[in-house]
Order: sequence, then C-alpha cells, then structure tokens
Amino acid sequence: MLGAALTVGAGVSPNGETGRPASTNVPGAEYPQVHADRRVTFRLRAPEARRVQLIPGGAGNGLGPGPVDMARDDSGHWRVTVPPAVPGFHYYWFSVDGFLASDPGSRTFFGWNKECSGVEIPDPGLTFYDLREVPHGEVRSFTYYSRVTAAWRRAIVYTPPGYDRDARRRYPVLYLQHGSGENELGWSEQGRVHVILDNLLADGVVRPMLVVMENGMVARRRDAPTQGPDGRPVRGNEAFAEFMVQDLIPAVDGAYRTRADRAHRAIAGLSMGAGQALQIGLANLDLFAAIGSFSGVAPETFDVDRTYGGVFRDRKETSRLRLLWMGAGTAEPPRILGMKQVSETLNRSGIPVVWFEAPGLTHEWQTWRLCLRDFAPRLFAK
Amino acid sequence: MLGAALTVGAGVSPNGETGRPASTNVPGAEYPQVHADRRVTFRLRAPEARRVQLIPGGAGNGLGPGPVDMARDDSGHWRVTVPPAVPGFHYYWFSVDGFLASDPGSRTFFGWNKECSGVEIPDPGLTFYDLREVPHGEVRSFTYYSRVTAAWRRAIVYTPPGYDRDARRRYPVLYLQHGSGENELGWSEQGRVHVILDNLLADGVVRPMLVVMENGMVARRRDAPTQGPDGRPVRGNEAFAEFMVQDLIPAVDGAYRTRADRAHRAIAGLSMGAGQALQIGLANLDLFAAIGSFSGVAPETFDVDRTYGGVFRDRKETSRLRLLWMGAGTAEPPRILGMKQVSETLNRSGIPVVWFEAPGLTHEWQTWRLCLRDFAPRLFAK
Repeated sequence: MLGAALTVGAGVSPNGETGRPASTNVPGAEYPQVHADRRVTFRLRAPEARRVQLIPGGAGNGLGPGPVDMARDDSGHWRVTVPPAVPGFHYYWFSVDGFLASDPGSRTFFGWNKECSGVEIPDPGLTFYDLREVPHGEVRSFTYYSRVTAAWRRAIVYTPPGYDRDARRRYPVLYLQHGSGENELGWSEQGRVHVILDNLLADGVVRPMLVVMENGMVARRRDAPTQGPDGRPVRGNEAFAEFMVQDLIPAVDGAYRTRADRAHRAIAGLSMGAGQALQIGLANLDLFAAIGSFSGVAPETFDVDRTYGGVFRDRKETSRLRLLWMGAGTAEPPRILGMKQVSETLNRSGIPVVWFEAPGLTHEWQTWRLCLRDFAPRLFAK
Repeated sequence: MLGAALTVGAGVSPNGETGRPASTNVPGAEYPQVHADRRVTFRLRAPEARRVQLIPGGAGNGLGPGPVDMARDDSGHWRVTVPPAVPGFHYYWFSVDGFLASDPGSRTFFGWNKECSGVEIPDPGLTFYDLREVPHGEVRSFTYYSRVTAAWRRAIVYTPPGYDRDARRRYPVLYLQHGSGENELGWSEQGRVHVILDNLLADGVVRPMLVVMENGMVARRRDAPTQGPDGRPVRGNEAFAEFMVQDLIPAVDGAYRTRADRAHRAIAGLSMGAGQALQIGLANLDLFAAIGSFSGVAPETFDVDRTYGGVFRDRKETSRLRLLWMGAGTAEPPRILGMKQVSETLNRSGIPVVWFEAPGLTHEWQTWRLCLRDFAPRLFAK
C-alpha cells in the first residue's frame, strides 16, 4: 500500500541508513530505500564493473536532473543516495559499463518504450491514491479484434464497485490515455487510476464510470494507405483516431453496459495522450462531450480559428462541449505551460476552459494523478 | 499473437540472420530474434563492458543448461546465437560485468523473485495457446482484504466469455497456483491460461469456470505465532493454506457468482504450487473435490498411509475426490519424475490417479500449459 513505506521509528541499517524498502520494490528486495526526508538510496551488485550510474528517467525527473555516479564498496555493490526526491512515481534505470538496464530490485513499469524501474516516494499529505478500506472496483483485461490495426488487442477496463451486482445499470465511459513510450497499463500501474476512482466514489464526489485504457502507440495495418485522402502523410495520431472510433468504442459499447451516447462519453490523456484526446475529442463532438488535457503540449502558434483543425471557429459546434479541461504541473517545461495561455485565449473567446495547476510538480505521474482527481469529479453531471 | 513470430520468407538481416523479433519483445525491439530452426540470437549494448553472458533461467531451461559467453562487435553490442531452443516460454537474463539484469528488449515476467526477461519459442504443431477468433473471457484484478496476511491483496480472476451476460448463472472455480519465485500473474502472462481456456471452451471440451490465481509466496502477518499448536514451526505453505481457506475462498465466493460447494471447487498448481494444491486440497476435502499437481516434487519417501498427513489411510474419506491428477515433463529431474511412482502406488492402493506426461519437456511453462490442457477438461463433470 502506498504511504506505508515511511514509518516513524524505522530501523537503522548496518550502513547507518534509516530508509525503508520502497513500496515499488519486488518482494524481499532491500533496495531502493526511501528515507524519512525523501532521500533515496540505490544499490546494485556488479562486482566486475568499472563505471555504474543511476539514470533518472528524463530531465524533469523527480529523482534529479541527470545521471548520478555510484560508488563501489568492497562487496562488489555500487551505491548512491540522492537528495530528497519529489513525492510521487519516478522512472529510473542503471548504466553498468554502458549497459542501460532496470534495477532487479524494482518492479517494472512500461515507460520510455521499455520495462523501466520505478520508485514511489510517499507524500504524507496525500491519501487519495492510497488503497483504503472502501468498496473496490476491478481492473479488467479485455480482448477484442481491431480491423484498423489488423490484430487482436488488449484494452484495460476499470469497472466501478458493484458493476456485476445490478445487471441493468449502465455507466458512462472515460477513455483515458497514457503518454509517449508508455502503454495501456500506465494508468493502473503507475497512475493508480482504480485506487483514485474507488476513493473518489467512496467520498461521494465522482459518478460511477468505466475507464477504458488502450495503447496509444498505434500503427496502422501494413497494407493501409500512408497518405490521407488529401495527399498528406497519415500520422500515428491519425491512425489512433481511426482505430479508436472504428474499433475500440464499438467494442467497448458491445461488451460492457455503457451509456453509449456523447453525453456519457469523455476522453482524456496525458502528454502525447493529451494531444490525442484534444485531436480525437474535438474532431468527434458527436462522440464526446468532455475532453481533458493533462500536461498536453501547446501548439507552436495558437489561433482560435485555425488550430485544432479550426473546430473553434464554429462556436455553436464547440458549445456542445460540456467540459474542456486543461492542466499541468507548475514546474513543467514552457511548451507544456504554454497550454495556460491557450486556455486563457479560449476563455477570452467565449469558450469555457477549466485550467488546473499541480503546484511544484513537473512532467510526471504525480501531476497526472492530481489532474485525474480534479478532472474526474467534473464528468457526467446529471 | 503467438505463432506469428515465424513466417516463411522472413528477411535476412545485415548480419546474415534470418530471425524475427520474438513475440515476447517490447514493441519495436529487434532482439532477441527467433530463427526458423528455433535458434535464438540475443543482443545487447554495453560498450564499456569486459564480460557479458546470457543466463538461461535455471539448469533445465529450454535455452540451454547454463551461462553462454557473448561476443562484442565494433559497435559496442554483444551478441550470441544459441542452438535450437525447446518450444515454449523460457526465462533468461544477462550478466554484464557481474550485474545480473533483464534484457531491455524483452517484456518482463515475474519469476526467480524478480522481473525476468522471457522469450517465447513458437511450436508450429500446437495452437491451443494461440489467440484465436473465438469468444474471449476477461482477466480481472480483484482487490480484497486478507486478515491472515493483514494486507490488501490482489487476486487475478479469469471469467469465461459471457460471464456478464447472464447475471443468474453461477460457475465452478479452479484455484490455480504458480511456482516458487513467481507470482499471481504467472498463469496469465507466462501460462496464457485465459487463452487456453477460451480455446478449450470454443472447442466444447471444457466447462465454463472461473480461475482464481493468487500469490503463493505468502507470509503470515508479523504478530502471528511462528509455531503451530503442536510446537512445530509454521511453514510458509501452512500460512498459505490458512490464508486461502480463511480469506481468499470466502472473498471470491462473496464477490463472484460461484457454485460455492466442494463439487464445484478445484485446486491445482505447478512445482511449489503443486505442493500447495496437494497439501491444501487433501487437508480440505470438504472444500475441494479435485486436485491437480503439475510438476510437483515427490516426497522423499512415499507411504500411502503416512505421507500427505496420512489422509489416504482413510480410503472412504479420499474416495470423495472426484479427480486426483498428476503430471510432469519427461525430461524433468528425478525428484519431479518420482511423482509417477507416487501415482502408481496410489493407483495400486485403489486410489485412482490420472498420470500425464509432456514428452521431451522439462520444468518449464510449456509443460504446465500442456498439463492445464489435459487437466481442465476433466473438471466439474456433471
């Protein structure tokens, strides 16, 4: 359970360390250890190596800005303790004589197009993503065939507590996308979407909903045209839009007890997934009435009447949106923070946008957990 | 999809190799590559390393018996091609200057108490674990509280196709355990239990059932007594038995539409899990009417009237068993193959046991997939 890693009175290790194994470790693994002051000690065994480094996953990582040299001890272990980390989930890996590999002590989490190590730094002030004694929904693996990608696919579907009990009740659906290099497991494994929604439901602040998560790194089938009808090349995002509209939504509406209308269907995503949510949502207002952009990248130039396919030129059309929501961490790069200006421009143009900021946080899962906590309760108002 | 990795006419790589990326690779990863003759080429980048080895997961691994030296090329990559591998799923990892780590090109699979790399070697003669165009069940993550372990836990539950459609139908349950060092995901990720059952159902040879998979590496809660009432130390397996009977089965019967009687409840497992299935099943004939041992370890000495707690002394009691099933690969170690003698002794003593052999296979997942294919259709006869 998150939050359990830090306990007052934690023992002191033989090395004088006061850390506890991270909640993200594999069972029995002593390292990484998280200290009460949020410093983190990493350790690995590589007796014959000459150079070993800890590599935080990306420049904006809450563990630090870049590679950190580790020091060898007499037992063939390499070790480093990094300064207090930002609370939340951080990707990392090691470089051992140039070999970039995960930490055998950590569970793996798909990110950066590979199975990454991850470390969870507790935030004693936040409990909304802790497993609590409340009714729990399920996280389901749903197998279906996609014609656009010409393959059997797996979607991850969160069903709220009680879904199986009343076989006549139907539910609204949130389509929720991960970021670049991640996959359909990101929101449950790294984001803890099911825990967050179970807690919000128990607190009575969110409506019961299904959440559908798919792999947004979608390629078209090999024989599909690589140019659109207008002659322009078809980008990955366009293939994903085609796949979602033609394959995923009908499959979900066929297999689950959904309320299959636009008022009860929303789309959101983080980073690359935010771009997909805006692109697909705005181009399909017949399908979606709510759109969420979590740490989306701002367009290089934003023009209300031209950007996003010019959809906002038709104010009557976009007034069908019940919720347009944008958020980011205040420590994110300028291209992400630029979405604040986009939201302000839209608001000035009479298009209501909710803008949300996660204070002090950057382009990481803690920001997106907080985005979800603010976004989900606004969905599917009666 | 399994079986898709080998295609006639596969291209020849710049290195003269004819392999195709394994189906177990992460998307986009070129290596490992499986060749048409089942040789496998592994490659990793470690420009500054001095010694790199491929380590098959265990001595009986279908990739080979032990570490294999890899050779460095001018680009800083290390490479090796191993002789034709046994079909099925094999764990492996690398040693880079003594650092034992997973292959960044592979998905990870929990085994050996860590997140292992794995490679799937297709068997063109077997289709029962290939994803086919048949109705598909779901694989669900079920959250519940366990008093014995004093923790929230996750069980993996397979529900057959149509489970959500008829809210009055109730289903028998198979409790299915992984081996030592694995976890509750082993049977779905490595074993493909859901694919196998979907296919057997489509073929009409198995009854619709739930399959419940939990983590058998169970520790008691910290304040629980470490000695039993008889003064003997409580072993892990005893804690698991207590946990399963007191926590898991009631939670499953409470949350799912089960047929909650002994005739419709079975227990099976592989290796360590086979020991747990025999121990828990035989000690709880009021709860289970069918038991399966997949590659279980034979007792050092077997005495019908004494081994397994002496339960077979009471022939009337054990005659309540509707199915006692034991199986192994013919290439497994003597302690595993010793179960054949156990089954023969039981049969001679008037206790019917089904004995099954997977020809040429050893202590690996391919054996256990084949065990499941033979075992499952025998369950829950009307």
